[in-house]
Amino acid sequence: MAGQPVALDAQGLDDGPKVALEGARLAAADGIRVRVFGPASLSPSDGVEIQQSDQWISNDADPVAAVRSTAGASIVRAAADVAEGRSGALVSGGSTGATMTAALFAMRRLKGVHRPALAAQVPLPTSADGGRGAPGILLFLDVGANTEVRPQHLVQFAHLGAAFSESVLGVTSPRVALLSVGEEQKKGNPDVIEAHDALAGQAAIEFIGNVEGRDLLTGAADVVVTDGFTGNVTLKTLEGTARAVAAAVRDAARSGPLAAAGGLLLRPALGGLRSSLDPNAVGGAVLLGLRGVAIVAHGSSSPEGIANAIRLADRTVREDAVGRTARALQAAGATREALRDAPARRGQE
Amino acid sequence: MAGQPVALDAQGLDDGPKVALEGARLAAADGIRVRVFGPASLSPSDGVEIQQSDQWISNDADPVAAVRSTAGASIVRAAADVAEGRSGALVSGGSTGATMTAALFAMRRLKGVHRPALAAQVPLPTSADGGRGAPGILLFLDVGANTEVRPQHLVQFAHLGAAFSESVLGVTSPRVALLSVGEEQKKGNPDVIEAHDALAGQAAIEFIGNVEGRDLLTGAADVVVTDGFTGNVTLKTLEGTARAVAAAVRDAARSGPLAAAGGLLLRPALGGLRSSLDPNAVGGAVLLGLRGVAIVAHGSSSPEGIANAIRLADRTVREDAVGRTARALQAAGATREALRDAPARRGQE
Repeated sequence: MAGQPVALDAQGLDDGPKVALEGARLAAADGIRVRVFGPASLSPSDGVEIQQSDQWISNDADPVAAVRSTAGASIVRAAADVAEGRSGALVSGGSTGATMTAALFAMRRLKGVHRPALAAQVPLPTSADGGRGAPGILLFLDVGANTEVRPQHLVQFAHLGAAFSESVLGVTSPRVALLSVGEEQKKGNPDVIEAHDALAGQAAIEFIGNVEGRDLLTGAADVVVTDGFTGNVTLKTLEGTARAVAAAVRDAARSGPLAAAGGLLLRPALGGLRSSLDPNAVGGAVLLGLRGVAIVAHGSSSPEGIANAIRLADRTVREDAVGRTARALQAAGATREALRDAPARRGQE
Repeated sequence: MAGQPVALDAQGLDDGPKVALEGARLAAADGIRVRVFGPASLSPSDGVEIQQSDQWISNDADPVAAVRSTAGASIVRAAADVAEGRSGALVSGGSTGATMTAALFAMRRLKGVHRPALAAQVPLPTSADGGRGAPGILLFLDVGANTEVRPQHLVQFAHLGAAFSESVLGVTSPRVALLSVGEEQKKGNPDVIEAHDALAGQAAIEFIGNVEGRDLLTGAADVVVTDGFTGNVTLKTLEGTARAVAAAVRDAARSGPLAAAGGLLLRPALGGLRSSLDPNAVGGAVLLGLRGVAIVAHGSSSPEGIANAIRLADRTVREDAVGRTARALQAAGATREALRDAPARRGQE
């Protein structure tokens, strides 16, 4: 169990750095060493080392300017820790923009990658097992790294997502789909239609065509690809809607004594739903396409959420997701250089 | 109660033309006359006239080609009925593409409108009343008429939505927002950022800035504007997620005798949630920016859903939404001609 340590940025969480420290301790109890970058008030414990780092980058700062100008910021130091080989992976629950920027600057892109993409893991309701047994996880990307993409970027996201789904989530031949406004090949905006044409000709991944917004939670696909604007809006819509409906059920159970009794009786059976709606269960989103491992945890993470993000980072390193992704891109002819020559491409790189 | 009749395309519904006929009868009982375009098997009744129309355009057909080549199709004849003044508004639960195309060809755009937009009404959970008392409705556009837009289109969608929200939904000074990846003015893709800058300078509508996907159901805005690709994906994600969570609650209530008893006790209190998740409650989406009224009902509508779509069409005519929209666009300087001169514009019309 003595792999490389995980570098944890403890700053920027909604509930403060103590949450990060507690998460680190939970993960350390599983044998994962954690190097925590945070304030001096944090104290080390077995498997948990503190790297004092009082500066940090807030959500309001411009990520690129702040990362460039704040070498001492916790996220910048944690990312450098990975780039310089002291840690094997980066986890942060601070500013998403700063985390992505620091990770990209420190770790660099994998050879042949256009742009890194942020991939969220969406737990599916237990009924949507896609006929595969255990309740599944949808890998959904890009959820915010690139608000503008070209067709060849979407094609590459499909390969990045498939490689992660297979290597870390353990899905054999993951079914990959494009998010669009209809299932037919010609439905979508021009970029999606062009990406569809390009993906339909590729043997290296199991491309199943388009899916619509209503298919995300049905287990119709293991990996769903879209641009970072649509992906971010869609993911937040999905989370917001699930919360709104769950809140309406809770409100109903408080509306009177009979309903309250009903809510109490139903509660144990709703446990599975509660945990599948809990963002802490999956740990965080993964920045794919880098030469290293970077996990973006929710700012609202609980200690268990941070621990799960650390466990995910550790698993991603152990499964050599980065190396497998690099080899998969090469083997599929899905590198930037190869896609530049693809006949389906029209636009400019 | 003797306004103009509503032209109803009875073809193309999932459950067949009888559903349309039953819907027409329910609306006729409220004093609305309906001209039904459908098969000869339908029979007239008080206030319900049948215009025999056996041809129809399926979801699989290319809408533009099919509408151009099938003058006898039910949707083409129903749209012509409005354009030629025999009916006051169009309702269809058939192919959305064919309905939008037939309506655009027959009714034409309002003077100064770039492109019509499809606006969905999303019922909000009762808890999200936005501090305004009665449970509200979010007007969300574009949900699929334009998969590609330019900033000036988004600006005009904002005005079209505000005019409809005020005139038909009865919202005073509706709060209008852009859908984006963050609340800050500079968050989004370049088109959204440019539209934000243009809208921030307009006094004619109450523009409240950006909202995120998680804000759609909280009542934070009365009108939310986005492009037709993002809007379609987002609306279907919202509907799909609400259904998945409701199904998970139902599954939980079937998981054992105690849970089943709980479900029974809770059921009456869940009535409000059920009806707020029911797409039949709002009747359909409205195509805004035309010289006439066109309502796109769900293909899966019940008779009550069709009746609500007819009632919405009738109300839209009575409130002179078209005339009020035209005057609002002129008064706000939000016509195509005025927007062309706007300093914020960079792209080509």
